[in-house]
Amino acid sequence: MKKVTIQDIAKELDIAFSTVARALNDHPAISEATKKSVRETAQKLGYRQNKLASSLRSGHSNTIGIMVPSLDVSFFSSVVHGIEKIMNDNGYSILLYQSNESYESEKKGIETFLNSRVAGIIASVAKETTLYEHFAEIKRRRIPLLFFDRVVEALQVPSVTIDDYKGGFLATEHLIKQGYKRIVHITARQTMGIFTERLKGYRDALRQYGLPVDDRLILYGDFSLDFGRECIRELHRQKIAFDAVFALEDFTAMGALQQLLAYKVRVPEEVGVIGFANESFAALVTPGLSTIDQQTVPMGEAAAGLFLKMLRSEDLYNNLPNRVVLDPHLIARASTARLASS
Amino acid sequence: MKKVTIQDIAKELDIAFSTVARALNDHPAISEATKKSVRETAQKLGYRQNKLASSLRSGHSNTIGIMVPSLDVSFFSSVVHGIEKIMNDNGYSILLYQSNESYESEKKGIETFLNSRVAGIIASVAKETTLYEHFAEIKRRRIPLLFFDRVVEALQVPSVTIDDYKGGFLATEHLIKQGYKRIVHITARQTMGIFTERLKGYRDALRQYGLPVDDRLILYGDFSLDFGRECIRELHRQKIAFDAVFALEDFTAMGALQQLLAYKVRVPEEVGVIGFANESFAALVTPGLSTIDQQTVPMGEAAAGLFLKMLRSEDLYNNLPNRVVLDPHLIARASTARLASS
Repeated sequence: MKKVTIQDIAKELDIAFSTVARALNDHPAISEATKKSVRETAQKLGYRQNKLASSLRSGHSNTIGIMVPSLDVSFFSSVVHGIEKIMNDNGYSILLYQSNESYESEKKGIETFLNSRVAGIIASVAKETTLYEHFAEIKRRRIPLLFFDRVVEALQVPSVTIDDYKGGFLATEHLIKQGYKRIVHITARQTMGIFTERLKGYRDALRQYGLPVDDRLILYGDFSLDFGRECIRELHRQKIAFDAVFALEDFTAMGALQQLLAYKVRVPEEVGVIGFANESFAALVTPGLSTIDQQTVPMGEAAAGLFLKMLRSEDLYNNLPNRVVLDPHLIARASTARLASS
Repeated sequence: MKKVTIQDIAKELDIAFSTVARALNDHPAISEATKKSVRETAQKLGYRQNKLASSLRSGHSNTIGIMVPSLDVSFFSSVVHGIEKIMNDNGYSILLYQSNESYESEKKGIETFLNSRVAGIIASVAKETTLYEHFAEIKRRRIPLLFFDRVVEALQVPSVTIDDYKGGFLATEHLIKQGYKRIVHITARQTMGIFTERLKGYRDALRQYGLPVDDRLILYGDFSLDFGRECIRELHRQKIAFDAVFALEDFTAMGALQQLLAYKVRVPEEVGVIGFANESFAALVTPGLSTIDQQTVPMGEAAAGLFLKMLRSEDLYNNLPNRVVLDPHLIARASTARLASS
């Protein structure tokens, strides 16, 4: 015998599929009369509700949306794994959306999450984004919103970040202690908080160790493998002397490293290179890329822990938001090991 | 003046938030009487519908769910990017779910997609999964379902894969042509179609070039960096002679490569190593890892193209499913360049 479906009931009663589904799940929007006739028709046709369908009942209160710039970046995928683990253990499912660093895509993703009636949203902001109405809308609807790593300060919602100032300081201090003196810093053209903090840390470390801050050594641009290569080519074209590079993140550092090797510059003997984020490739390349570890697992755990509190909270946004700031760690590898190799 | 929200209207009329939202969006499940009173109250209170909310109107017919084993694997994230690009251009949003290779998590993810009322699902199956009821349910509901890379053949739904047999043949043939003769193949314990096809290609290439198939050289297990290392240790413990390794995928190949280097074995002079998938790290490591490229961008494009047809189709599953099979490409790097280096 053919299995009886919701469609069969809908056809029999000449009403919409969604009306039948909601009636079977006792949805408050459906009238008692409709529910009664749906139930009677279901029984008459021999319809058996399946487990999967019956979970439709509760709306989507057990689904969380996570918005990330890109899951190609292992920093983000690693934090997401940390969040997933704890949220799954607490009975939540995770839907992901990649903004691919685009403002339009991010807006669309938030809209998609809201349409999917997620119970809350955890987000890290796209690099293009400078308007925050789509995030404000989440808060306005009193849906839990938490930022990690890239935060919209003005929105006053809970967040989990690392101390980027300290990370920038640690990276620069490490280069100085390895004997490097003319340290290039590659940073971002846009004023994303995390990158200006890393830049501040770089400046302060130079000052603290009595080295001059030379503005020609601070390069502003995009962040990518290609931009890292381009920075080294530009420094060579302009004949600017330098003996180390601290890049705002690992892909850019890797591009700089590749271009230095292409120019037959010895790393770390002549030039040291350090990145930021501890991307998975950093340990696999030769020489191994020194970097700053952003504590992705503790970050994911802290984000999930804080978010679970929000989900259970009565007065979501009435108090000052809880802000967790984690300490970054220096990972010293071969690309800066001048003392060891000299 | 405080902005008037849907909550304010709901409170005023003492009805549910969702009823007000649907009434404002002219949802067919809401009675004309309710719609009228909601509209009147909205006007009275000065409510202005925002753009984001008004997109709630159309249900979720513009959202597609993609289920992947793990976005840490660049093969999957790269195919996803390919799909995203085309689906976004066609007005669809993409929600992602990682099964993390777990059957339970995959089931939960499919349920979450269905609860989110996605317009269709594109999936690659978790390695743990051997029961397919959750996928059958999608088809039963007549929601478009397409598989890529890892397919459930029995379900008879459209799919996009590469010719894994040919990939296995190409990898093995390349090693033979570089002069390697005792070629280890690391494959999976479970009988996932793609891996048995690669194994078949390996066997046939050996036969075609007149080399014996030695079952001691075929190692079965999990696939991971650690398992690749373990395979080399096991071959050494058992004193089995070999001069090349073809691993079922790049992480396993990378583990084998690392363990060989730890044993001071010269790669490619003494032992050649080739993987499968062209993971992003393969070009960055030293020596560069030879591999088989799985045409991720064409795969994503083909999957999106086929899926768009399904979304527009009237009789979704009535014909034999469309199956696209792409050709894999050999990427020869330093890890197998014995002829060049001898």
